[in-house]
Amino acid sequence: ARPRVGYYHSGKNPSRILMDKLHSIKVGDVKSVPIVVTEKCSVYDAAVTMFIEDVGTLIVVREGGFLEGVLSRKDLLKITLGGHDIYKLPVGVIMTRMPNVVTVETEESVWSAAKKLITHEVDALPVVRVSDDNSGVEVVGRLSKTNITRLFVELGES
Amino acid sequence: ARPRVGYYHSGKNPSRILMDKLHSIKVGDVKSVPIVVTEKCSVYDAAVTMFIEDVGTLIVVREGGFLEGVLSRKDLLKITLGGHDIYKLPVGVIMTRMPNVVTVETEESVWSAAKKLITHEVDALPVVRVSDDNSGVEVVGRLSKTNITRLFVELGES
Repeated sequence: ARPRVGYYHSGKNPSRILMDKLHSIKVGDVKSVPIVVTEKCSVYDAAVTMFIEDVGTLIVVREGGFLEGVLSRKDLLKITLGGHDIYKLPVGVIMTRMPNVVTVETEESVWSAAKKLITHEVDALPVVRVSDDNSGVEVVGRLSKTNITRLFVELGES
Repeated sequence: ARPRVGYYHSGKNPSRILMDKLHSIKVGDVKSVPIVVTEKCSVYDAAVTMFIEDVGTLIVVREGGFLEGVLSRKDLLKITLGGHDIYKLPVGVIMTRMPNVVTVETEESVWSAAKKLITHEVDALPVVRVSDDNSGVEVVGRLSKTNITRLFVELGES
């Protein structure tokens, strides 16, 4: 007999249902627009961009939108405390540079992205697509702890 | 007849199960230790504390551990860019001060805390207990987007 509920009874237990749900959501479903600067941008201008756009992480790209590095609010605060000339110092000198940047792709699960955020102790990841001719890693988005927190709120509402 | 699965079939649908689970976890289950300074602490010393403790939000308390305000990495970056004397300027001048600080209590759900983080656009909340004689709001922890992200990872693992 069919169960008298509105869905087919799969025999999964609740934590399995939860796990499957969290793994089924993709980075592409929740990612934000990337806020980018070039590596010649000064530390001061980068900080201003961070305030105007209200983000905690800037993505550094070269022509064509290819990933060069990332820059966090923490990186900027450290430099502003150090007595450097922040109007002249380019962000290329202080950013985390490729290939040391942790990235995610659109088709990866948000769960996997969250695990990278925790494991690598960063606040945001560039969302990338490896270009067809292997000429570089193209930036297509940004995924942060804010995206995870917002998703957590939405999952509890539905 | 009993269903041939290892749990009692409640008739709840999967998104209801997910929702109930997210609402059942309490702030007290996932909160971190609060990192505190007093309001006489200089902006420079506060920034150093932030780096040493590796947190993005400091909680400002008065004697007895009562909540006075909060201070974010963003607040500190804004001030270091502004040409102030950060060795002399006390954090009391730039912090967000009570009663304008959004807080959570230990018995609140993590979901409710996550909603506050998103609604009020902050990275962390002081976890507080209102003292019995109403003399103030005692700080007992800190809950940040990192706690939410870590919980999200754990829920997908179990």
